[in-house]
Amino acid sequence: MYSVSVRDHVMIAHSFRGDVFGPAQRLHGATYVVDVEFRRPELDTDGIVVDIGRASDSLRKLLAELNFRNLDDVPAFTGRNTTTEFLARVVFDGMVAAIGRGDLGPDAGAVESIRVTLHESHVASASYDGLVNAPSPPRGAGATATA
Amino acid sequence: MYSVSVRDHVMIAHSFRGDVFGPAQRLHGATYVVDVEFRRPELDTDGIVVDIGRASDSLRKLLAELNFRNLDDVPAFTGRNTTTEFLARVVFDGMVAAIGRGDLGPDAGAVESIRVTLHESHVASASYDGLVNAPSPPRGAGATATA
Amino acid sequence: MYSVSVRDHVMIAHSFRGDVFGPAQRLHGATYVVDVEFRRPELDTDGIVVDIGRASDSLRKLLAELNFRNLDDVPAFTGRNTTTEFLARVVFDGMVAAIGRGDLGPDAGAVESIRVTLHESHVASASYDGLVNAPSPPRGAGATATA
Amino acid sequence: MYSVSVRDHVMIAHSFRGDVFGPAQRLHGATYVVDVEFRRPELDTDGIVVDIGRASDSLRKLLAELNFRNLDDVPAFTGRNTTTEFLARVVFDGMVAAIGRGDLGPDAGAVESIRVTLHESHVASASYDGLVNAPSPPRGAGATATA
Amino acid sequence: MYSVSVRDHVMIAHSFRGDVFGPAQRLHGATYVVDVEFRRPELDTDGIVVDIGRASDSLRKLLAELNFRNLDDVPAFTGRNTTTEFLARVVFDGMVAAIGRGDLGPDAGAVESIRVTLHESHVASASYDGLVNAPSPPRGAGATATA
Amino acid sequence: MYSVSVRDHVMIAHSFRGDVFGPAQRLHGATYVVDVEFRRPELDTDGIVVDIGRASDSLRKLLAELNFRNLDDVPAFTGRNTTTEFLARVVFDGMVAAIGRGDLGPDAGAVESIRVTLHESHVASASYDGLVNAPSPPRGAGATATA
Repeated sequence: MYSVSVRDHVMIAHSFRGDVFGPAQRLHGATYVVDVEFRRPELDTDGIVVDIGRASDSLRKLLAELNFRNLDDVPAFTGRNTTTEFLARVVFDGMVAAIGRGDLGPDAGAVESIRVTLHESHVASASYDGLVNAPSPPRGAGATATA
Repeated sequence: MYSVSVRDHVMIAHSFRGDVFGPAQRLHGATYVVDVEFRRPELDTDGIVVDIGRASDSLRKLLAELNFRNLDDVPAFTGRNTTTEFLARVVFDGMVAAIGRGDLGPDAGAVESIRVTLHESHVASASYDGLVNAPSPPRGAGATATA
Repeated sequence: MYSVSVRDHVMIAHSFRGDVFGPAQRLHGATYVVDVEFRRPELDTDGIVVDIGRASDSLRKLLAELNFRNLDDVPAFTGRNTTTEFLARVVFDGMVAAIGRGDLGPDAGAVESIRVTLHESHVASASYDGLVNAPSPPRGAGATATA
Repeated sequence: MYSVSVRDHVMIAHSFRGDVFGPAQRLHGATYVVDVEFRRPELDTDGIVVDIGRASDSLRKLLAELNFRNLDDVPAFTGRNTTTEFLARVVFDGMVAAIGRGDLGPDAGAVESIRVTLHESHVASASYDGLVNAPSPPRGAGATATA
Repeated sequence: MYSVSVRDHVMIAHSFRGDVFGPAQRLHGATYVVDVEFRRPELDTDGIVVDIGRASDSLRKLLAELNFRNLDDVPAFTGRNTTTEFLARVVFDGMVAAIGRGDLGPDAGAVESIRVTLHESHVASASYDGLVNAPSPPRGAGATATA
Repeated sequence: MYSVSVRDHVMIAHSFRGDVFGPAQRLHGATYVVDVEFRRPELDTDGIVVDIGRASDSLRKLLAELNFRNLDDVPAFTGRNTTTEFLARVVFDGMVAAIGRGDLGPDAGAVESIRVTLHESHVASASYDGLVNAPSPPRGAGATATA
């Protein structure tokens, strides 16, 4: 299996609800350094997994929607804790959609799976790793579905 | 698949037996920077994989048993080479036990697999990656079983 | 010149005032990975610059006052932009005060200068580097003085 | 599953053919920081995955064939774009061959799979991950076969 | 002293002349991860050293002139070895010029000194550190002057 | 000022004497990732600070004397705590001696100062920074002199 990874970052504010979060229930923030890894079994005729320039641009555009925002005010996240692992899934879904729109080029449809990792500090990170074309409901009810 | 990773470190002395180790047969030491990645297919109702605070505390407590020690003097390791890969398994087993005791919270039982990586320098590392609930004998005879 | 450095991190929310900040005028946040370097010309009789355990504890205690907070609500920062470089100075002042209180041990008074670096992402950081005992007004009016 | 990883680097010049590469169609170059991860289900009787010294030496010898070269002039790569992902496969094939020759020791035949990652900058990398003994044609026609 | 640092990278080909370079006399290449640190004694009225957005843009524009090029073909470097340390000076001179043109904003003239570091691998780097307004001939004859 | 830095590592065992060290009074160990930075005001006629190959070889040879050893048994360190900062000075002295012997080439005598940094973990490091030709006694009595 071949893969290519690109990196960018985003700086956001948010707060969490639930005793498990302790002081992180207060409004605070984070820098997330974001890695997106694209995987496919064979290279295309140019010898690449994806156009790394397009992949970087797509990631930047996707993160720009979140960058310098208070995630508590983003309607799409109402009622959800925007944890690092949750946001890894949000970026994953966004990259899958970008591939579907052709933003990464016509050949990027051959990408089988994607792994998104968000580094929240030098000692903690979270990831979401999944198939681009999931066989059934694309996401679990417990994960990101809205009621 | 979702994951969360935490990092800590431990500083130990030890020596190895076997020609393959060359000068590392002498008493020497290492700093191991330890990453533990917890994985589960869906997030819990708080939107997390594990309580990152509890995970960090459990890792610290586990490493404290080894920290600032000569591993050649630790009874549990008698007759074993405490290589980086062997110690990755020791940390894995310790984290599985911590989950079993409920140290990572009641919901951490949903963690399916764990990957432990020990970085011994800027150019070398070793890992153990396994299921939390292995279907049969939890470890191979060649790996960590004692006679 | 000898030095010792310790690292920790802090996660905060804040916003900036001034056109120069563009979208960072909105409420957002950051993880700051904080390095504090202590320097002195000779080692003490134990062969150290400072007690690294005490230095780490002091840094953690200092950052705990800021951690998981919206800096826009911290009275000490009213009317100031809590930029990365400004916060580097805040940590510097806090460490100087800690040395003055003896928190880093009786011998830490020999520390001549301190450099504090805050990494706000994988591509940007800021520092403040200064003498522990500045010969005149300990800080410039343009930097951190309050009217 | 256990693994051990070693790191080295190589500095090369090359150019790419194809509109997708934009300015990278010009002669340019790269430093690749190369990680090779060896995996096997159980440790050998010494408690290791592979002899880390031999693994490092084999990687260095393999990279020496490419180091300080213009890859456009290497006959084995004629007609191919020597992209980061392509070169990850080249290193993978070279390490599989080294194991086959016994360069990593008699016990290294138990290595089941290898992952090679080439970091081309602080924001981009590529990998090839495969079985050491692939069940059928060892590589896909679209990947590294020459017509 | 306050400082702010930004990071970017550039990928080039080149060759060196001189026995000291050994195999690096052949045409090869490098990725340089470039850090530029700007220093000034006091912050401006916005609480910053420089506008980090402008600094990043200026660095990107400067590196774009070198990116994806064979430096052996760049007229400005004729007869010079484009070593990592030499290129650190080139970036330094370019950033000083950018400040002079006002590219980093009207207040950036208060920047006293700049340090440029080029990381050529995970084990080697080079820097140039100098005053923005050097009191006499801005650079040594042995360093970057052209005949 | 120009500089070039090279990196290597060493793995040792040792123990400390003194209450300040707490559990580190026990026999333990460390991996030190060692950076050596060489500085001079102008480049030589080849356009370099030092021959990076020779610098790396000298550092490796120097560290080989310590590697895979229990520093408590090294006669030169009798009665001294081999702290990270102390060892930074040991490496500094060794590199100064190597320059004096001509190991880094005839032109390396122009190196004015050296900074040695030992990273003992992902959160702690220590350095010694000094002139190659110190004007008076080359080291302080409190630092590395033996009784």
